[in-house]
Amino acid sequence: MTPATPSSPANSVIGEIAKRRKSIRMFKPEKFDLSIIFECIDIAKEAPSGSNAQPWHFVVVEDSSLKEELRNVCESGEKKFYSHVRGELAEWLKSKGLSWKKQFLSDVPYIIAVFAYKKAPYSRESVWIAVGYLLLALEERGIASLTYTPPNRDEVAHLLKCPKDYRLKVLIPVGYADEEKTKEVRKGLEEITSMNRFGG
Amino acid sequence: MTPATPSSPANSVIGEIAKRRKSIRMFKPEKFDLSIIFECIDIAKEAPSGSNAQPWHFVVVEDSSLKEELRNVCESGEKKFYSHVRGELAEWLKSKGLSWKKQFLSDVPYIIAVFAYKKAPYSRESVWIAVGYLLLALEERGIASLTYTPPNRDEVAHLLKCPKDYRLKVLIPVGYADEEKTKEVRKGLEEITSMNRFGG
Repeated sequence: MTPATPSSPANSVIGEIAKRRKSIRMFKPEKFDLSIIFECIDIAKEAPSGSNAQPWHFVVVEDSSLKEELRNVCESGEKKFYSHVRGELAEWLKSKGLSWKKQFLSDVPYIIAVFAYKKAPYSRESVWIAVGYLLLALEERGIASLTYTPPNRDEVAHLLKCPKDYRLKVLIPVGYADEEKTKEVRKGLEEITSMNRFGG
Repeated sequence: MTPATPSSPANSVIGEIAKRRKSIRMFKPEKFDLSIIFECIDIAKEAPSGSNAQPWHFVVVEDSSLKEELRNVCESGEKKFYSHVRGELAEWLKSKGLSWKKQFLSDVPYIIAVFAYKKAPYSRESVWIAVGYLLLALEERGIASLTYTPPNRDEVAHLLKCPKDYRLKVLIPVGYADEEKTKEVRKGLEEITSMNRFGG
């Protein structure tokens, strides 16, 4: 099968959704049909992976007390992290009003925990491509999300009964947005692209 | 701004494109308008990143002799890799007819080399999310692609004049597909998902 001649779609749906999506940290507690989340994971699993090993596992956390526990474990890791953070990152965090508090973990209706099978080739890379697909699929359905990587991932993984051959990569809280914000500004294309050689 | 109520779109464009896309290793040499590639990178750069550092750089390789050089360097790395590979991966490679030959690197009209700024937080993860966006944007425009990770990335990066604070993550050859293939089968949703806890 030969693909259609490459051309710019008059309306790029991928472009529109990608430009619309922004990271959200405040969520309404309202639930929505769980099947929508599984639909998005069903799209994420179409991502390519090293040797087609599909080295991902998605745990959908809905249980309220478990979300509270997740929040407690993450916040204890964050407190340690924040006590050490310095320099540009510290300034950026402060400017964004970010702290060790991760209230979204107990407020959101669902958290998607994404794990990688450690023994597969390029498992990390494959999982993050799938996360890219997942974020766009969620946004297409009007669901806000955040890629949140706790500093103490192994403790969080333990709470979720992660087997030893897997590693937790990210927690993705998902739900209705409960904040109004503008998207973080992106660099211009000319700053992040070159022809033929870096800087060319 | 509150997003629309989450709902399954009657036709999920993201889903359709994700399901349609497959990794392609044989490309026609025909060129197409370079602006289409930059349009796709413009979408990829909408991906979220740690501290919004946008730690990515995209080098679009069009020069024929440079593509030949890239191929030579990659193939020399692949020869070493293939002489050591064993077990399941070796079997999988054989079953797919894969070898150290990377003809697509000289056949494709363009290669997008993707680099990560090493000093940014979560730069690797951010770059791979952006790669997920990029693959879908390319597919939306009918452009076939492959995520190809040379075993000797640092040598390849050197050829592309990669600065020391960056690292090459992946080469993405892009062009018209010149092979007919069925997409690699994906695992069922029930195999890769759990509720609340891993295996739950």
